[in-house]
Amino acid sequence: MGDSGHIITLTTDFGTRDCYVAAMKGVILEINPEACIVDLTHEIGPQNVHEGAFFLKGSAPYFPNGTVHVVVVDPGVGTDRRALCVEADGCYYVAPDNGVLSLVATPERLVSAVAIENERYLRPTVSGTFHGRDVFAPAAAHLSLGVEMSDLGPPVHEMVRFELPAPTASGDGAIAAQVIHIDRFGNIITNADMATWNDLTRSGKGGDVQIRIHGLVLSRTCKAYSEVPQGSPLALWGSADLLEISVNRGNAAERLGAKVGDLVTIQVGTR
Amino acid sequence: MGDSGHIITLTTDFGTRDCYVAAMKGVILEINPEACIVDLTHEIGPQNVHEGAFFLKGSAPYFPNGTVHVVVVDPGVGTDRRALCVEADGCYYVAPDNGVLSLVATPERLVSAVAIENERYLRPTVSGTFHGRDVFAPAAAHLSLGVEMSDLGPPVHEMVRFELPAPTASGDGAIAAQVIHIDRFGNIITNADMATWNDLTRSGKGGDVQIRIHGLVLSRTCKAYSEVPQGSPLALWGSADLLEISVNRGNAAERLGAKVGDLVTIQVGTR
Amino acid sequence: MGDSGHIITLTTDFGTRDCYVAAMKGVILEINPEACIVDLTHEIGPQNVHEGAFFLKGSAPYFPNGTVHVVVVDPGVGTDRRALCVEADGCYYVAPDNGVLSLVATPERLVSAVAIENERYLRPTVSGTFHGRDVFAPAAAHLSLGVEMSDLGPPVHEMVRFELPAPTASGDGAIAAQVIHIDRFGNIITNADMATWNDLTRSGKGGDVQIRIHGLVLSRTCKAYSEVPQGSPLALWGSADLLEISVNRGNAAERLGAKVGDLVTIQVGTR
Repeated sequence: MGDSGHIITLTTDFGTRDCYVAAMKGVILEINPEACIVDLTHEIGPQNVHEGAFFLKGSAPYFPNGTVHVVVVDPGVGTDRRALCVEADGCYYVAPDNGVLSLVATPERLVSAVAIENERYLRPTVSGTFHGRDVFAPAAAHLSLGVEMSDLGPPVHEMVRFELPAPTASGDGAIAAQVIHIDRFGNIITNADMATWNDLTRSGKGGDVQIRIHGLVLSRTCKAYSEVPQGSPLALWGSADLLEISVNRGNAAERLGAKVGDLVTIQVGTR
Repeated sequence: MGDSGHIITLTTDFGTRDCYVAAMKGVILEINPEACIVDLTHEIGPQNVHEGAFFLKGSAPYFPNGTVHVVVVDPGVGTDRRALCVEADGCYYVAPDNGVLSLVATPERLVSAVAIENERYLRPTVSGTFHGRDVFAPAAAHLSLGVEMSDLGPPVHEMVRFELPAPTASGDGAIAAQVIHIDRFGNIITNADMATWNDLTRSGKGGDVQIRIHGLVLSRTCKAYSEVPQGSPLALWGSADLLEISVNRGNAAERLGAKVGDLVTIQVGTR
Repeated sequence: MGDSGHIITLTTDFGTRDCYVAAMKGVILEINPEACIVDLTHEIGPQNVHEGAFFLKGSAPYFPNGTVHVVVVDPGVGTDRRALCVEADGCYYVAPDNGVLSLVATPERLVSAVAIENERYLRPTVSGTFHGRDVFAPAAAHLSLGVEMSDLGPPVHEMVRFELPAPTASGDGAIAAQVIHIDRFGNIITNADMATWNDLTRSGKGGDVQIRIHGLVLSRTCKAYSEVPQGSPLALWGSADLLEISVNRGNAAERLGAKVGDLVTIQVGTR
């Protein structure tokens, strides 16, 4: 356990109107009163495992080594899905085995994983509906006190995984990307990353770039919103190094009526 | 004061868009910079004392001994309602005397209570509209530093109390329960607890159970959502040991159009 | 750096559904794992600098000396607007130079200000869209570890500033105030402060006071909601010493259809 083993973050789909997150915080502090609990979000869409995975990718990597990340987006609670504790990239993740760790505990970052089964580190009674309180919170608290992962349960060799949908070649030199997130400002975040872009532009015939979404056509990428006038749309590389469509000081998603899953085409070197 | 006297939790109806919660945090940290402030919720319905009491019941008991719980749902601020400091079940509660502590500081759990009146532990000027900042936050912070409850003010022998509405016998061997909470997932939480249930089923004539709400009839209780197919409704004992009506991976309240106060009838042994 | 240099507060317009706030917390804790991060709000209206300034005025002054306040409401991110570190009234503020500090770092409270430019205290790569993560969070974390403000960058002698709109004399002995905030309870907060009020009433001809908003006329100011019956409107001096229009246990803004910017007239001594 590193020096930052006292930091325990929480990422859930519980919201904060109900008592679920509060109960988890109590369970953690009962076991480790010196834990530093950090709320990441409780606003993941209910049972939306993909959204949880994307959120973690954009936040967990910034935390110091030894941080324990508790992730509870758990539509399968009460089934035989396993409860995981995973070490990856210097941090620990405690989460259901449903793919929510796919984007942070990638095969190249994963160090080891166990199934949390040792009753000594769970609440005395485990409900069938609230493992956040009864399994994940206590396991994380014990981990933050120095309990070894191997004490939590047996090794796991295969986790449930998914990958973000990748942009696909659409034949005529273009690629078809898609909208994967709309943020609070209405920025439209796509799955087109730098590598895809570089491949495309290297193979392009030297013509113009065209980024199309909902009838809007943009012909270059910017580095900051301010490169276009207020109220104008632009494409730029966002803070996660993904291609975003924005409006300078405006709301692009509202303007374009865009939503998650919508198509964005990128073409280089047309006629 | 126990070892966890540095933990101060906050439960309010202030939301987080306004500066009220932030001001309370500042007041606490000005008095005790080492306090560990834990947000439970700020989303209690405005001035909804019953909702606050139900929230506390599901969260405060998980915290370690010595925790100081600050509760500000305070429609009577500025009247002569008292400001209480209560010790119950190893923890401290600082709250208006309006019943919001009814479900955590029950007579069997209550150790002692005082009215917070000693000006030494209040802000120099006490407004008529914001005792969260001027009374409850400073009292809690001083308590977390080791001030004795008896220094805060004179003993209180009667607190304002209410009880959760209890299920009632409806004559023909059935009981009438009611919906007391709808959570973020749309789970419908009733006031039917295990004891009520056991009384009913013991006295039943051995026939089927029937749980009815809004035209839906369920004939058994489950332990996990997964005992029914995705999209199907079920009744189960939720994480607070209360009877809940849910839909596996769906939203039961939306499906049934259920809301707080709605009737749920439970019958055993009908032909 | 004072004793409370470990306290770092966050005030943003990021919401908590996206990963932005979580990433900032990670960056801070990576640099200073002992930092005590305190959420003030993340619900400032998107890019609403005035709302951010008003929020800070009502919350930051309650924090102990040495607190580092991080404020990210930053519509000009990626332009040449400066990133500021400001010492005022015993605390430190880290924020874009867009006026968001106008009401806390007033000329009489300001001690010194620098532009954050020293790359040693920024993230290795600074994006054009997310200085909360790349500039403000790391600068605040280093400051909390004892880095001197003067090490962050060169002195700044003029900050962008605005003032709250002030009530104006409207000729016939009346003043025209305006609504500057509606809180979660529907309380209508105006820009009429005690000083304005005292000037007006001192110069009044001894007649009645009349406070008018949307057809409602109130003839006195109260100290607590309870001075009028439940459901009745009242004017009172709120917790920020500004004149508020409220409804005892009700929602005044809904009742009156009031919104930010609406006119409130105050008259003394009319026949």
